[in-house]
Amino acid sequence: MSVAPTVSRDRLWDTLMEMGKIGALSNGGCNRAALGSEDCRGRDQFIRWCRDAGCQVTLDAVGNIYARRRGRNATRPSVATGSHLDTQPHGGKFDGIYGVLAGLEVVRSLNDAEVETDAPIDVVCWTNEEGVRFSPPLAGSLAFAGLVDVGTVHNARTLDGTTVAEDLRSGGFLGTELPGSRALDCFIETHIEQGPILEARNKTIGVVTHIVGIRWSIVTVTGLDSHAGTTPMDKRRDALLGAAAMITTLNQIARNQDEFARLTVGKLQITPNSGATIPGQAVFVCDLRHPDAAILHSLEQRMHAAMRAIASEQGLQISIERSIDIAPLRFSQDLIDTIRSTANELGYSNMDMLSGAGHDAMNVARVAPTAMIFVPCKNGLSHNEAESATPDDLAAGAHTLMHALLARAQSKSRQ
Amino acid sequence: MSVAPTVSRDRLWDTLMEMGKIGALSNGGCNRAALGSEDCRGRDQFIRWCRDAGCQVTLDAVGNIYARRRGRNATRPSVATGSHLDTQPHGGKFDGIYGVLAGLEVVRSLNDAEVETDAPIDVVCWTNEEGVRFSPPLAGSLAFAGLVDVGTVHNARTLDGTTVAEDLRSGGFLGTELPGSRALDCFIETHIEQGPILEARNKTIGVVTHIVGIRWSIVTVTGLDSHAGTTPMDKRRDALLGAAAMITTLNQIARNQDEFARLTVGKLQITPNSGATIPGQAVFVCDLRHPDAAILHSLEQRMHAAMRAIASEQGLQISIERSIDIAPLRFSQDLIDTIRSTANELGYSNMDMLSGAGHDAMNVARVAPTAMIFVPCKNGLSHNEAESATPDDLAAGAHTLMHALLARAQSKSRQ
Repeated sequence: MSVAPTVSRDRLWDTLMEMGKIGALSNGGCNRAALGSEDCRGRDQFIRWCRDAGCQVTLDAVGNIYARRRGRNATRPSVATGSHLDTQPHGGKFDGIYGVLAGLEVVRSLNDAEVETDAPIDVVCWTNEEGVRFSPPLAGSLAFAGLVDVGTVHNARTLDGTTVAEDLRSGGFLGTELPGSRALDCFIETHIEQGPILEARNKTIGVVTHIVGIRWSIVTVTGLDSHAGTTPMDKRRDALLGAAAMITTLNQIARNQDEFARLTVGKLQITPNSGATIPGQAVFVCDLRHPDAAILHSLEQRMHAAMRAIASEQGLQISIERSIDIAPLRFSQDLIDTIRSTANELGYSNMDMLSGAGHDAMNVARVAPTAMIFVPCKNGLSHNEAESATPDDLAAGAHTLMHALLARAQSKSRQ
Repeated sequence: MSVAPTVSRDRLWDTLMEMGKIGALSNGGCNRAALGSEDCRGRDQFIRWCRDAGCQVTLDAVGNIYARRRGRNATRPSVATGSHLDTQPHGGKFDGIYGVLAGLEVVRSLNDAEVETDAPIDVVCWTNEEGVRFSPPLAGSLAFAGLVDVGTVHNARTLDGTTVAEDLRSGGFLGTELPGSRALDCFIETHIEQGPILEARNKTIGVVTHIVGIRWSIVTVTGLDSHAGTTPMDKRRDALLGAAAMITTLNQIARNQDEFARLTVGKLQITPNSGATIPGQAVFVCDLRHPDAAILHSLEQRMHAAMRAIASEQGLQISIERSIDIAPLRFSQDLIDTIRSTANELGYSNMDMLSGAGHDAMNVARVAPTAMIFVPCKNGLSHNEAESATPDDLAAGAHTLMHALLARAQSKSRQ
């Protein structure tokens, strides 16, 4: 595709590969925990590139980086894009990073084509999306949306024992701008899908319409520690046996619901976890996701009831605590339509889809029209060093992003 | 019961309670890890009590303690009893300790009644039955039976970083006698049942006929780490979901076999064990027990096949490694008959039963006629601070032990 202005596939790729050298791991991935030394190097690199591209770089009080390409009308709210540069401990080269560097590529391409926009364009790097080194995850976008206080972020303690405020100061990322004080015309985040759907359906662009709702239940099943050799099978109160039946049943309930339901038990700890002792306790986390709030709630209630029934059958005690409750989010219809029609005009195969993962965009959506563009990633793999995407698909996403941003930035009807 | 000579119920109980003060925990239990400071205090106390009772105390090269009450015929092999004084980290006051102190009570009672036996009687404290602080567990009886070298035990590294040889020397427990060089006429170990059967059937004495065979399989199920939100249910390779189905099926197979089969998954670790990631790996230990070697083998093979079938159905890889293989053991028929007829003569309700747990007796059985006497423990609970047994039941066990030992020690027909 080469609808003008276009983006440079190879420059975008080379920039991604250059960033991938910072915190590089042996199997092709990256480890840049937010505000740790490698993330700071990545942020410094990003800021240099943005300044080289003529952008004005501003930091806010939680270290979010805004690189502004000026518009004709300095009073208009900015048309914004971006994502995050921090990674999981064994993360890939694309999750988050792509969304930031696609924004940079848009700026560079507009410069090359000498396109002047009416509204300014901001490329944003949100602080600590992954939450590996400190909590909360998504801290930068949460603060921008007013969902967490600057003080809370500043006082958060990192894995290295520092506070976030100390790290921001020592890294040179402590800005004076109040997060959220900057008006945004819109925010479009590009991201690898982190799932297998685009690849399976052979589509280049995912037009993200929703982010699913997420509920976590922390389930504690209590039986009785007893001796593996001396306790008859029918006298046992085996917490793991109960948990096993629950895990099987929960998966069944999710599969029987519809194609959008997701249920995962990813965290499980049994006690005392000794080969010759029947486990007296099992604690596990149920991660339940659905784009429809009513179905999400009904699924959760059915799952809780099913677990209670199994506990009762097996003579086990159970307690269930809801620890995360994020409502499903529908993105801006206007932006969704813009992205879809842009992809069509540019000739990229595309489909509407959900995001099953949380993203900074879901927080920004509280304060500005927001949407997301997904591109395929190999085998749907993410949070993994083997995370992979093709230069062509990445360029297609950036190209779509550029024209969607232009549609907003050149429009005279807004503001 | 008071068939003469009898034992002192209260003295036995008081001695148990006195020993229970050493390494006492806040919830009524004890922590005396083998050759740690508390275990050394317990061993010193036991030796003082034995010397006060007129015994000659000898140590062997792995720290097994032999307290001998002399017989008329010093050349006869000793009629032996005993167990271990070391405990689990949150152990009770009875597991092991009872078997040692019941032997001491027999000596004291024979002294009181001025009974002279023909054969000497040895009360033995085997070193490190529990294996908490160093390996192998059952070290003392393994060395006695020639199943492990003295050097191997001496070189074993403890949790405190010392070697066992250093601990034996510093504690004053490094004897010169070669383990196993002492001839035993027989060995009878008394022990709390550690299971619920005697209590449920309202019997006082368990005449232990077998120790079950034990096989451990270490099972590694491998799927693929992937994102909980973005991976459709039908595209997952969830190692925990596979393990859950296996755990359920393994339990079913054991229950369907017979009342003697025991299957426990007590140890399980999933990776990466993160709430929002589908687990790519689950490693668990299957502890399988049965008193019949052929059935044990057939059960194991059926379980392995069932797990492979589940892995295949779910698109998971599986590897299964057998890590422990202990053959079932039948105790000495002669001793079994002696214990049963002794219990009957003394008027104690009794039943033949299996031991589902391993004990020092199973090693000693390799080199001398051996059997065990069980007494009830409350709710079958053991390896737990709440471990409990009644003074009456404990005295009944010691009384039965005394008369069974006397039957051997007074017999002129032996040796």
